[in-house]
Amino acid sequence: MTKQIASLGYTVFFENNLESLATFITSRNYSQILVLVDRNTNDHCLPILQSALSEITDYDIIEVDPGEENKNIDFCIGVWKTMLDFGADRKALMINLGGGVVTDMGGFAASTYKRGIDFIQIPTTLLSQVDASVGGKTGIDLDNVKNIIGTFTQPQAVFISGQFLDTLDERQMRSGFAEVIKHGLIYDRELFFRTKDVDLNSDGLDDIVFRSVEIKNDVITQDPTEKGLRKILNFGHTIGHAVEGYSLIHDADPLLHGEAIALGMICEAYIAHKINGLSTTDLSEIMAAFDNRFVRYAFSEEIYPELIALMQNDKKNDGKKLGFALLSEIGKCDYDRYVKEELIMESLDFYRNKNT
Amino acid sequence: MTKQIASLGYTVFFENNLESLATFITSRNYSQILVLVDRNTNDHCLPILQSALSEITDYDIIEVDPGEENKNIDFCIGVWKTMLDFGADRKALMINLGGGVVTDMGGFAASTYKRGIDFIQIPTTLLSQVDASVGGKTGIDLDNVKNIIGTFTQPQAVFISGQFLDTLDERQMRSGFAEVIKHGLIYDRELFFRTKDVDLNSDGLDDIVFRSVEIKNDVITQDPTEKGLRKILNFGHTIGHAVEGYSLIHDADPLLHGEAIALGMICEAYIAHKINGLSTTDLSEIMAAFDNRFVRYAFSEEIYPELIALMQNDKKNDGKKLGFALLSEIGKCDYDRYVKEELIMESLDFYRNKNT
Repeated sequence: MTKQIASLGYTVFFENNLESLATFITSRNYSQILVLVDRNTNDHCLPILQSALSEITDYDIIEVDPGEENKNIDFCIGVWKTMLDFGADRKALMINLGGGVVTDMGGFAASTYKRGIDFIQIPTTLLSQVDASVGGKTGIDLDNVKNIIGTFTQPQAVFISGQFLDTLDERQMRSGFAEVIKHGLIYDRELFFRTKDVDLNSDGLDDIVFRSVEIKNDVITQDPTEKGLRKILNFGHTIGHAVEGYSLIHDADPLLHGEAIALGMICEAYIAHKINGLSTTDLSEIMAAFDNRFVRYAFSEEIYPELIALMQNDKKNDGKKLGFALLSEIGKCDYDRYVKEELIMESLDFYRNKNT
Repeated sequence: MTKQIASLGYTVFFENNLESLATFITSRNYSQILVLVDRNTNDHCLPILQSALSEITDYDIIEVDPGEENKNIDFCIGVWKTMLDFGADRKALMINLGGGVVTDMGGFAASTYKRGIDFIQIPTTLLSQVDASVGGKTGIDLDNVKNIIGTFTQPQAVFISGQFLDTLDERQMRSGFAEVIKHGLIYDRELFFRTKDVDLNSDGLDDIVFRSVEIKNDVITQDPTEKGLRKILNFGHTIGHAVEGYSLIHDADPLLHGEAIALGMICEAYIAHKINGLSTTDLSEIMAAFDNRFVRYAFSEEIYPELIALMQNDKKNDGKKLGFALLSEIGKCDYDRYVKEELIMESLDFYRNKNT
């Protein structure tokens, strides 16, 4: 596929072989190219990038460890120091080749190194393609609070290639698909129902990825700095981020982002059903969509206080009140809905007991 | 004095008693106020701020250690974590009350916490009043490379009060005055000659501070992100920053910023004399101005390679070439002048031997 989406001052290129990349770079007068990868993308994705760069052979590689637990300030300091070691100046270009850890942290490192150098995002996971590719959010975690340190900085370009998805295992594909389902739930009823029958092992996802990015781009270009509408993208994330943070601390094999927000979306759909008019039918559809793809996460009510504390540190909150994006129906979402702790705990009970 | 300067989307208030501050804050709907201080400003400047805030009594204090050697990522992490501990949300306001360490690091912490919260700068040293108060540069040092990590982010307002200058010792006053002299040298010949007779112990500096900020503001509003003209503000800083970094590593009592750039300005004036048409008379005037106020820094040629390496890591450089802002006469400055290492070393020789 060779489609494009115009975002905030830059273009998202959908190109299986990154056809436009080399021309894009050589048309700009960069002093140096840095490529940020993790161990996985170094092995599986860098060769694809290298073919696309063709005659551009002079670049430096910075490698970080994969995994959300490494998207922290210590690794970021390592990236900054390596940039210094490579003598990168203000006219250097950084190419971030990887999943959300690489694109978020690499975007943050680039946006703050020497007060900001250009960067190109090449998301290689389904999650980062549909979630991190537009919107200009960069960030790292601190004390297990997700993306608490970051900037709003737009990349120079984003390249999305279906080739990279072939390098993912099924669990990563499912995790990313949770965000695709979310885009349907908050903005496009038809997309939600289309996702139901997709077989992640065999179906081509090009059209669905494109539509998903298009939705996100529609939302963020209307509200780049998240003053209003953009908050609907946080559906499932208030509870989901807290559970993700909890799991990072306590689990040997932590939940992936999409797994955590699948949980969050069930809980927050329940809350929407209770206070925002979401119908019983729609609630059931939503539960079915996630239960078809995800095993429920097991936890006891003893962790509720820790989850609530993590929610209170979430960026989205206005002081101590917990702000939610809540569906009114599948395909429509409101924001700035403040929810009492009792109802949040009730939604966690609902999730754990399935139908009480 | 109660004057104002309009900068990039915000106002610089010159008010001895910070008369407008309380109204400015209450007119905006902040969820919370954080005040960043260092030990010195906590003791000497916070009382002045507290009187000005009058009925606003609910704020949290974050204290960092004073000194350029603490303007690093470790302290910044401490600030971020304290912000998290205080439960600061996106509608919190940060007031940075201190010298350049507090305003640079506090500005960086605020501009990256939850992807950016509002902040007000209240510079309390002469240096930070004339240098850091406009321009939107935030930053911290890494591996002794100055301000290598940072953002361009404008504050909501800046308040400048002559009261704070009474809390400074003579050495700090002289350090700040180096930047005032610089503003004359690069932009206003008349200001330069006015500075010659100022007695920092007794003369009121209000007018000179105002003119100095006005000059800096003139320059940065024409070129906010330092693509061109703004680079003239770096006069003296290519060599000065390197010596400052060197001194931070090696000296028990490191050079202050202004002391280092006074050295840098003598060296770079020598270079300007050699290759940019600066007259012998002007060069002598410049040397006299600094030698009247500063003792020369003693060092041997053995440290030249380390200084050159530090210069090469300076943000201003384009690849490996060393970029300088060079005077053509007192009051006029060019930028993007590339200088060979031999001439830089010759200028260091010139500085050490005074007149060979």
